[in-house]
Amino acid sequence: MNIFEQVESEVRSYCRSFPVVFNRAQGAELITEDGRTYIDFLAGAGTLNYGHNHPELKEALIEYISSEGITHGLDMHSSAKAHFLETFHEKVLKPRGMENFRVMFTGPTGTNAVEAAMKLARKVKGRSTIVAFTNGFHGCSGGALAATGNEHHRGAMGTSLNDVFRIPFDGYLGEGVDTTEYLEKLLNDPSSGLDHPAAVIVETVQGEGGLNAADAQWLRNLEAVCRRNDMLLIVDDIQAGCGRTGSFFSFEEAGIKPDMVTLSKSLSGYGLPFAVVTYRDELDIWEPGEHNGTFRGNNLAFVTAAKALELFWSDDSFVDEIKQKATHLRNGLERLVRRYGPESLKVNGRGLMSGIECPDGEMAGEVIRDAFKNGLVIETSGAHDQVVKCLVPLTITMAQIDFGLDVLDKAFAKAAAKRERKVS
Amino acid sequence: MNIFEQVESEVRSYCRSFPVVFNRAQGAELITEDGRTYIDFLAGAGTLNYGHNHPELKEALIEYISSEGITHGLDMHSSAKAHFLETFHEKVLKPRGMENFRVMFTGPTGTNAVEAAMKLARKVKGRSTIVAFTNGFHGCSGGALAATGNEHHRGAMGTSLNDVFRIPFDGYLGEGVDTTEYLEKLLNDPSSGLDHPAAVIVETVQGEGGLNAADAQWLRNLEAVCRRNDMLLIVDDIQAGCGRTGSFFSFEEAGIKPDMVTLSKSLSGYGLPFAVVTYRDELDIWEPGEHNGTFRGNNLAFVTAAKALELFWSDDSFVDEIKQKATHLRNGLERLVRRYGPESLKVNGRGLMSGIECPDGEMAGEVIRDAFKNGLVIETSGAHDQVVKCLVPLTITMAQIDFGLDVLDKAFAKAAAKRERKVS
Amino acid sequence: MNIFEQVESEVRSYCRSFPVVFNRAQGAELITEDGRTYIDFLAGAGTLNYGHNHPELKEALIEYISSEGITHGLDMHSSAKAHFLETFHEKVLKPRGMENFRVMFTGPTGTNAVEAAMKLARKVKGRSTIVAFTNGFHGCSGGALAATGNEHHRGAMGTSLNDVFRIPFDGYLGEGVDTTEYLEKLLNDPSSGLDHPAAVIVETVQGEGGLNAADAQWLRNLEAVCRRNDMLLIVDDIQAGCGRTGSFFSFEEAGIKPDMVTLSKSLSGYGLPFAVVTYRDELDIWEPGEHNGTFRGNNLAFVTAAKALELFWSDDSFVDEIKQKATHLRNGLERLVRRYGPESLKVNGRGLMSGIECPDGEMAGEVIRDAFKNGLVIETSGAHDQVVKCLVPLTITMAQIDFGLDVLDKAFAKAAAKRERKVS
Amino acid sequence: MNIFEQVESEVRSYCRSFPVVFNRAQGAELITEDGRTYIDFLAGAGTLNYGHNHPELKEALIEYISSEGITHGLDMHSSAKAHFLETFHEKVLKPRGMENFRVMFTGPTGTNAVEAAMKLARKVKGRSTIVAFTNGFHGCSGGALAATGNEHHRGAMGTSLNDVFRIPFDGYLGEGVDTTEYLEKLLNDPSSGLDHPAAVIVETVQGEGGLNAADAQWLRNLEAVCRRNDMLLIVDDIQAGCGRTGSFFSFEEAGIKPDMVTLSKSLSGYGLPFAVVTYRDELDIWEPGEHNGTFRGNNLAFVTAAKALELFWSDDSFVDEIKQKATHLRNGLERLVRRYGPESLKVNGRGLMSGIECPDGEMAGEVIRDAFKNGLVIETSGAHDQVVKCLVPLTITMAQIDFGLDVLDKAFAKAAAKRERKVS
Repeated sequence: MNIFEQVESEVRSYCRSFPVVFNRAQGAELITEDGRTYIDFLAGAGTLNYGHNHPELKEALIEYISSEGITHGLDMHSSAKAHFLETFHEKVLKPRGMENFRVMFTGPTGTNAVEAAMKLARKVKGRSTIVAFTNGFHGCSGGALAATGNEHHRGAMGTSLNDVFRIPFDGYLGEGVDTTEYLEKLLNDPSSGLDHPAAVIVETVQGEGGLNAADAQWLRNLEAVCRRNDMLLIVDDIQAGCGRTGSFFSFEEAGIKPDMVTLSKSLSGYGLPFAVVTYRDELDIWEPGEHNGTFRGNNLAFVTAAKALELFWSDDSFVDEIKQKATHLRNGLERLVRRYGPESLKVNGRGLMSGIECPDGEMAGEVIRDAFKNGLVIETSGAHDQVVKCLVPLTITMAQIDFGLDVLDKAFAKAAAKRERKVS
Repeated sequence: MNIFEQVESEVRSYCRSFPVVFNRAQGAELITEDGRTYIDFLAGAGTLNYGHNHPELKEALIEYISSEGITHGLDMHSSAKAHFLETFHEKVLKPRGMENFRVMFTGPTGTNAVEAAMKLARKVKGRSTIVAFTNGFHGCSGGALAATGNEHHRGAMGTSLNDVFRIPFDGYLGEGVDTTEYLEKLLNDPSSGLDHPAAVIVETVQGEGGLNAADAQWLRNLEAVCRRNDMLLIVDDIQAGCGRTGSFFSFEEAGIKPDMVTLSKSLSGYGLPFAVVTYRDELDIWEPGEHNGTFRGNNLAFVTAAKALELFWSDDSFVDEIKQKATHLRNGLERLVRRYGPESLKVNGRGLMSGIECPDGEMAGEVIRDAFKNGLVIETSGAHDQVVKCLVPLTITMAQIDFGLDVLDKAFAKAAAKRERKVS
Repeated sequence: MNIFEQVESEVRSYCRSFPVVFNRAQGAELITEDGRTYIDFLAGAGTLNYGHNHPELKEALIEYISSEGITHGLDMHSSAKAHFLETFHEKVLKPRGMENFRVMFTGPTGTNAVEAAMKLARKVKGRSTIVAFTNGFHGCSGGALAATGNEHHRGAMGTSLNDVFRIPFDGYLGEGVDTTEYLEKLLNDPSSGLDHPAAVIVETVQGEGGLNAADAQWLRNLEAVCRRNDMLLIVDDIQAGCGRTGSFFSFEEAGIKPDMVTLSKSLSGYGLPFAVVTYRDELDIWEPGEHNGTFRGNNLAFVTAAKALELFWSDDSFVDEIKQKATHLRNGLERLVRRYGPESLKVNGRGLMSGIECPDGEMAGEVIRDAFKNGLVIETSGAHDQVVKCLVPLTITMAQIDFGLDVLDKAFAKAAAKRERKVS
Repeated sequence: MNIFEQVESEVRSYCRSFPVVFNRAQGAELITEDGRTYIDFLAGAGTLNYGHNHPELKEALIEYISSEGITHGLDMHSSAKAHFLETFHEKVLKPRGMENFRVMFTGPTGTNAVEAAMKLARKVKGRSTIVAFTNGFHGCSGGALAATGNEHHRGAMGTSLNDVFRIPFDGYLGEGVDTTEYLEKLLNDPSSGLDHPAAVIVETVQGEGGLNAADAQWLRNLEAVCRRNDMLLIVDDIQAGCGRTGSFFSFEEAGIKPDMVTLSKSLSGYGLPFAVVTYRDELDIWEPGEHNGTFRGNNLAFVTAAKALELFWSDDSFVDEIKQKATHLRNGLERLVRRYGPESLKVNGRGLMSGIECPDGEMAGEVIRDAFKNGLVIETSGAHDQVVKCLVPLTITMAQIDFGLDVLDKAFAKAAAKRERKVS
């Protein structure tokens, strides 16, 4: 029995899919203790958009640590924080017409950013209900968990999860049904059971929910419903943000203007714990320390995050690069679908947040297990774990994408054959 | 207007007490951008027990980063995690008769560890109520916040906080009243309104609550009430643990055996976001991934945490060192009390988690503002911010303690004189 | 200022629509202190299915009171209770294949019966979620209110309303959308956000919600979804039961077999406070007194209720009578629709639970105010008070129906004309 | 198997203590179907303060029914309601300096009155927390149940019970501890965990809780704490009101002025379902119909209630009568205590809400079972059912009291002997 089985909690999960011990990593490569190399199509569930241990970020980080820069300072002012704020303001907010957005450093986890956003929305509007969507995932701490759809997580709470109203996500009621119309009908109906919400929280592409990409028009309709009904629009961009879908924020393509945005995962650029909520300054009615936490404002993350913004978001070249890779990856996935199940398989998602939906979790599970045997770290998502999810580093090389596609090709070939045998 | 006022959220708080920009730090010293040095009696609110940027931890960290060790790997196995688990098992759990304890990596924040502990306790017992104490602080995310006493934080939630029953902490009902007897009376009374709890969550010394130190006998009584009434005992050792009160766990002195312990803050040893819950293996009924989060298992923190355990907890020398410093500090604080208010001031706390309780928050506020002007970073705590809280690095030098005591001497002299003028 | 304005709470409501003082009543007639007679198309919001002060019930009641029969006996056995139970068993349960149903006497209000049903369902299934529908009304006490849709009532609670999941009622998503399919999709989707419910609570015709009559097939589909997903089906028959829609239970037409049924309003037959839940005996896992209340089991109501069951439900003649009157009334309503707004008006409901839906609450309000001036007591319902609701006593005469229809004819004529002027 | 066992729910409870079928009743006498007479020391758990079927109330009731007075009229104005309001205003409110109190007709159950009071308090203050006490009983519907202490009832809810903070009742922490000081300490402590409450709800004598009578000074202290801390004081006088303790309201002796009072049980005077909340007019900020219910305003109860007020509360003679009977009863109970257990037994309660506390529920259970065999209907109360509770009709004769005391004497003799045998 190894040390993990002996001492680590049964709650551990990813390690069960990948029963090796990783030691080093670089870019899209993960290397085990015994020297085997895997290509990473998981990327820390979207945390490693710039790959593992990006050399320039690593250099900045080591330099900062070596110079005895502040590592932990609660939310005291630090040079590193100032530099991050300036960079985020200049490279992210300003060019996107969000120069009036404030940045709140929450506890350095996505769920904590969601908690903060939900609290602030309720405080601003003086109402308790938040609208969330089927298959949404927003974290596992008590406040955020109410908005998360997954019963596996919800069931672990052990108390009532309050004041979230669930609306079907785009497409949930079938093609041609605009579920924002259902939302608005409820809002206009004083006995619908939906109390006037403070806000709507939405992912533009539902990562954990199965790479369900909301249509741009649906997002615009949702924004309009929020405006007409005095509700805040919160985009939870923790997984889909930081370039994953092709632009810094995932909602840029739709042209909407959320009131609040949560960011975490790839924000530090280096896989360091970090999270923020950014929102229009009129909403900034927090009293000092009202929402707090020891690790809000992670100085090491300030350093790598600022560096990552400078490196990748100073001009449009990275956006172009993502687009090319996304096209390449999605073409590859479409090819697999055509080859192994034009009726039963389907490409889901948007940009480099794409994958293949299988008829069930069993098939998807076989694919990823087989892929792992052939050197690819990749996971499933979706309500039934039925989606093979390609969450590659955005800095991955074309060759690495091709390697992954080849591995997947073989895995799908096998799984499809097995499935056919079973069906017939 | 500086960048912080322009862009950072109004929720920022510590920076308001210390309106400078810190740049570097070493041990108990904080250095500003313009070169001024402060002695740190705050230590990241208990996060920097081994001081800022401890040289050997720094070295280990840089070495790990340089070698491209895994930085982020979700909860996949890594060499760094294995090494941390082995070290924690050997240096912490085993010598304390806790070799059967499991370690759960939660999101890397204290509040997330508390959420996990509360969930697991409810799941194990199949009951929803948790007992928490007056002036308790356990974090600000929805689940943990229900257990936190502070109305400032509670009021920000905007929804009902469920299923926590509040009991007066040791001493709350005056000397000579054992509040565990009240708890047991409620438990034995089927119409008390206290539904059979799953667990009790307690801090042995309430950090945010004003350095209220529970008596060892009271803790033993509390443990006995838990045993007699089939409730789990959770010690939230996030602030008081990792040596702060003189032993690794704060409850060792009382000789109790909690069922679960939460740790965070100083666990990484370097101020890195990190948190665990450790609990008896029989309680480990989690299903894989039931409570999760992107940053659970921070590899950089594994490295520094393991190193810190090796450095400081391989023998008893650190315990002795803390004891000497605590005696020195507390003697100094007692001297201040005798000098400036034997009737009105009072030394609170235990070990290096000690401070001076003032008659009100106004006086305590004057003391820390004056101290800051003279080069000391120090904060207040308590329901009315009335306690001047000395949370020095455990690695501080005697000379630095003396410097701090001198600064506090002058600050108390001034504040006491002012108070006297006001009263007369 | 009269005594009502001086002393009665501002919460009073129906009296504002009918600013007279009623003194006596008989059948479908209400007589004021100053001798004016009104025809009653409100019938105590469905409480007076057998009319006011039915002579034979009155006689039985007076006889019982005169003989000093037990009036109040908590839930002790009484002859009156035995007689009611026997009669209910013989006349109601047995003929409908429900001989294995138990009868629980809750507090004598509809909301209390709903509370009891929801509690028992949760206890039986060991789960907390209950599914309720848009525009549902189930009462105003804390437990039941969570299932009620009306924001006017919900907003008065002042705390979180827990563990009810709202599903669109039949027709809510437009013609051709079977909302039970949406419910089942949520149930089969482990990240839908709908935790496995203990039960579904439904009105077959939503009285307060605007006389929305569920299609019989939809009800059968709902029952099937409950069966396939191990959920209890609770029919809240408080307003639609006791003959209102043409059969004793409103769900008989659809041929479904609910697990639990709540009854109140017309159950006593005489307007006396009374309520029961009846459910399959396997579900009867209550411990003695677990849900209680001082007035559960109202002996005067036992007497009139048993008498009413004997009088009206011993054979099918009353069912036939209701059917004829319903046809007559609905024909009359259809005529009004054709005459005053074939495009804008619409007949809603089922059986003698029918009315006319107006384009808005303003028009419906004008109709009922005008009707009252001409001797008709009638109210609106619906989310926007847009439905003119004809809740006549089932014992009303054809002549009285005609009187009412005449009054409504004039009122609609006026309101329609006014509306036309406004539009043009 | 009789009809009750066959058809009535397992939730039935009192009938299990008294396994006979009652048929008629008069004053303090209950007569079974087979002609046996019992003396009633239970009085409908305080619902029959004027005895069963009081002749003058009966006469008024029959007259009203015979004249076809309105039986059910929702909350429309009726002559009977006007008369009740005038009488209540003149006989109850005005003489007690409460002429500015409004009367709200809630659903006709105590729990519904409590729900209404809690809602209104929360609405008035814009806060959600309500303070309730250990051993308090306020009803079993979801909102009120949160304030009820009994785990038997609470456990049946199946969802979180929100926003009630429990404080030890007078005497709970032992003699000499004023628990209102604990309450005030919590209120003045911003990290106590007690969020600023909207109101305190209290019974002056806890009926279900074991006849715990609050000291008059404690009640005055509680009122003062409410005033100093801007909280409403709600006296739940459902069981202790209507003369039970010697004055119309139970709090008159203490000289306090609650902001709201709930009344039910004996308010109708005849055992009819009826309940009100009465409160200072400034608090009357309800919107029409915001809290509603079909049976609010029970006209038959208006008739008997007004008559009862006229008969019993027009002068002080009834107060004197209660006082004499209470003295007589309590002397008798004291005698029993001296005789059968001066160390182990104890007289509890106040006025005609008195009883004997036994060392355990077993002994009390034996007493009442034996008493029933000898012709006395009497029940226990208290957390462990350890109090033999004498809730006689206030109109009982001295001879009937003596009969009951004799029966109790023999029952205690037997139970005490048995207990002694067991102990030795």
